[in-house]
Amino acid sequence: MEILNGKEFAKEIKEEVRGKALAMKKKPMLACIIVEGDKASEIYVASKQKACTECGMLSRVVRLPNDVSQQKLQNEIKKLNKDRAVTAILLQLPLPKHLDETSAINTISPEKDVDCLTNINLGKLFAGNSDFAPCTALGIIKLLEKYDVEIEGKHAVVVGRSLLVGKSVASLLEHKNATVTLCHSKTQNLKKYTKDADILVVAIGKCKYITADFVKKDAVVVDVGINRVDGKIYGDVDFENVSPKCKLITPVPGGVGPLTVACLMRNTLYLEENSNRE
Amino acid sequence: MEILNGKEFAKEIKEEVRGKALAMKKKPMLACIIVEGDKASEIYVASKQKACTECGMLSRVVRLPNDVSQQKLQNEIKKLNKDRAVTAILLQLPLPKHLDETSAINTISPEKDVDCLTNINLGKLFAGNSDFAPCTALGIIKLLEKYDVEIEGKHAVVVGRSLLVGKSVASLLEHKNATVTLCHSKTQNLKKYTKDADILVVAIGKCKYITADFVKKDAVVVDVGINRVDGKIYGDVDFENVSPKCKLITPVPGGVGPLTVACLMRNTLYLEENSNRE
Repeated sequence: MEILNGKEFAKEIKEEVRGKALAMKKKPMLACIIVEGDKASEIYVASKQKACTECGMLSRVVRLPNDVSQQKLQNEIKKLNKDRAVTAILLQLPLPKHLDETSAINTISPEKDVDCLTNINLGKLFAGNSDFAPCTALGIIKLLEKYDVEIEGKHAVVVGRSLLVGKSVASLLEHKNATVTLCHSKTQNLKKYTKDADILVVAIGKCKYITADFVKKDAVVVDVGINRVDGKIYGDVDFENVSPKCKLITPVPGGVGPLTVACLMRNTLYLEENSNRE
Repeated sequence: MEILNGKEFAKEIKEEVRGKALAMKKKPMLACIIVEGDKASEIYVASKQKACTECGMLSRVVRLPNDVSQQKLQNEIKKLNKDRAVTAILLQLPLPKHLDETSAINTISPEKDVDCLTNINLGKLFAGNSDFAPCTALGIIKLLEKYDVEIEGKHAVVVGRSLLVGKSVASLLEHKNATVTLCHSKTQNLKKYTKDADILVVAIGKCKYITADFVKKDAVVVDVGINRVDGKIYGDVDFENVSPKCKLITPVPGGVGPLTVACLMRNTLYLEENSNRE
């Protein structure tokens, strides 16, 4: 069994981004919009700003009160769309319940949509016309490639169907010619599918849900879960019992988590490189 | 074994569309763009026009010479985008090799994109935010629903990953809570997957490729193939040998084929109903 060391690989990605960003005349800038009231969101946005600094990029935070109206939120997004200093716009999710996430996201200009969540960018991803993808999904594929995991022709089973992770990583695995099965909360007999997986990606948010009997011998297992229990962090996979069976496995923490922020940096750089600004 | 009678159901859909279209003050109009040179395309476009007439809708054909430039093609599309008489635009595929299909398709206004192939409309489909989908994929789902096929929790295996059929029907089946496996030309041991399918959709264009040993007893089989051999039409499924094992199966011809045109009529009506014209 070998560990898929996401933490180490995230450092490499960030170093590469930093090298390129420092050489750019106009520094890439990530603008994060945060609607106040969610504690975890505050921590995530702070870590994204820190990463920007580490990578030689600029960042900006737009804070909006918890009771902000849909229109005011969308107006703030439109201002950032027009602002030539801003390369990339990230709308920190989740939003308070009175706001419409889909409408808000689709107000972001596709050219600045760093999370790849606008309909246009999702359509390109679905059609296989783009190497731009949501950060976590991209990080997973890059990690597999880093460790020379063969994807073509393999059975990849993805558990969880969020846009940010499950559906997007399923799409990317299919583009790499895996045969992909997408499982979710309505799947009956989940074990039947996971036990057949050469590559198993789990993103369900259930602490240690995937036990050894869910996994085939010599599988490659990617655990996207981040579950906090008594101040400790656990994945969706029961690492202790599953890892001895695996060929490769991501630990939690230190697996997929650090890659998400690293790929956010990579996506910000990508948007600057592909921007039409003269 | 029971037959999924697509021909009969297509008639019903067209009747329903006709009823609604006749009651509309402004008649829906489908504009088909055809770049000359493909014989099958001529036949398809003619049958689409005929269906429009049957359904009480208008149609128009824009013919372009085989050596038309990309720019001229896109200008024609833009004219139709602006033309308030036109409800829906269909770019008949395939295009001659010197033309860029993706760029041409994405010139179509999403509000008139009757095949649901623009990035924006594909993104909505992928995200599950829309009941608008490519005609064949939509026809398959509606046929399954017509025959009360249970989809939720079932294992749906889709063979073939075209945007128009495979990927789109996989997405729709997932929205209906099936566990979906998407197989394709790089899939190893295809039989392993198809034999486990409760619902099997085949769209690969290989005459009678799916034989009885590929299919589980009591499966529901949908055959999208249209293969012409010696003037006769066959599906991708070896109907004679497979059908006795099935719970339900579409014949070829008379299965999915007629549904595609019927759903094109339904999509044209849908676009008129949802248009922002005053």
